[in-house]
Amino acid sequence: MSSTKDIDALIDLMAKLPGLGPRSARRAVLHLIRKRSLLLIPLADTLQAVAETARECLNCGNVGTTDICDICTSEKRANGELCVVEDVADLWAMERSGVFKGRYHVLGGTLSALDAVGPQELRIPRLLDRVPSEGITEVILALNATIDGQTTAHYIADNLEGQVRLTSLAQGVPIGGELDYLDDGTITAAMRARKSF
Amino acid sequence: MSSTKDIDALIDLMAKLPGLGPRSARRAVLHLIRKRSLLLIPLADTLQAVAETARECLNCGNVGTTDICDICTSEKRANGELCVVEDVADLWAMERSGVFKGRYHVLGGTLSALDAVGPQELRIPRLLDRVPSEGITEVILALNATIDGQTTAHYIADNLEGQVRLTSLAQGVPIGGELDYLDDGTITAAMRARKSF
Repeated sequence: MSSTKDIDALIDLMAKLPGLGPRSARRAVLHLIRKRSLLLIPLADTLQAVAETARECLNCGNVGTTDICDICTSEKRANGELCVVEDVADLWAMERSGVFKGRYHVLGGTLSALDAVGPQELRIPRLLDRVPSEGITEVILALNATIDGQTTAHYIADNLEGQVRLTSLAQGVPIGGELDYLDDGTITAAMRARKSF
Repeated sequence: MSSTKDIDALIDLMAKLPGLGPRSARRAVLHLIRKRSLLLIPLADTLQAVAETARECLNCGNVGTTDICDICTSEKRANGELCVVEDVADLWAMERSGVFKGRYHVLGGTLSALDAVGPQELRIPRLLDRVPSEGITEVILALNATIDGQTTAHYIADNLEGQVRLTSLAQGVPIGGELDYLDDGTITAAMRARKSF
């Protein structure tokens, strides 16, 4: 490549982002250089700001700019409901829907015997502490419907049995989903959980 | 989204990069925050450096960190050959192959009647100046094999006719290419330009 050191370094770093490879990283860097004032400078400044301030919430594992995140400090959200998710991306997806008004707990992954991930590697001990200390009345296990996700949900349920109400997300046909495109498991789940019309 | 201002702003900016949308931008930002010292800080620093130093070469349009780029200042590359490309990405692709030892001229696009791009909007006047002033003996028209690319090549050829040797890249079967997957136009071009084995 004929570009100079910084530009090469920038391409290498961009290529490490998920969803970008060497070719798309080169395209992105050229785009950035062409849109200097519109994109390159704001992006550089914002990254610097995020690098300085972004951190994980010590309580729930959400990403924010304070040691304890906005959701954990908000009194409005202390309604006794705690939604357990695998990842910050899941928390963001839940927040976009706007349907949940309680607090969250981000595990940071799922239990996995193969990858040697036990409860200590996740935020599970902290979850078991939070339930009594924050007066939680309902724990919603919003883990992914994968084998590891469901194993983790069962492990947490075993540990919280009798202390709180335990729920999980309903399974069924997605809104706008066409039956023809759904997998057998989803159709089976939707049929078993059918309700009166 | 429950994240705070800077993180939201970062997601919005990342989503403007080619190849990334809102979902992949969120994934990329979470990945950056998780890999703070390995990726986020180096990326922020490198972007800042590139924002300060990156510029277009005033002579050829290449991207570099000086007013006149390394290729234009290198005496070794003043061998009388000038390769005309549409875009900096094309120049980088050519440099990766390492086959060309001369200088480049980046047009910055192609002539296009529909988009009202005439010779003045591209770096064509500068190209016509460079040919006599840099003692160019051969101009290689390495423009894309699209209609606009070929129109532009013909326009340049008309203007340089008689002054220099004009060549273009060979067309044919790509190395490793399978005939079955090639379009008719490529097979026709390869057959017409066949050579003795």
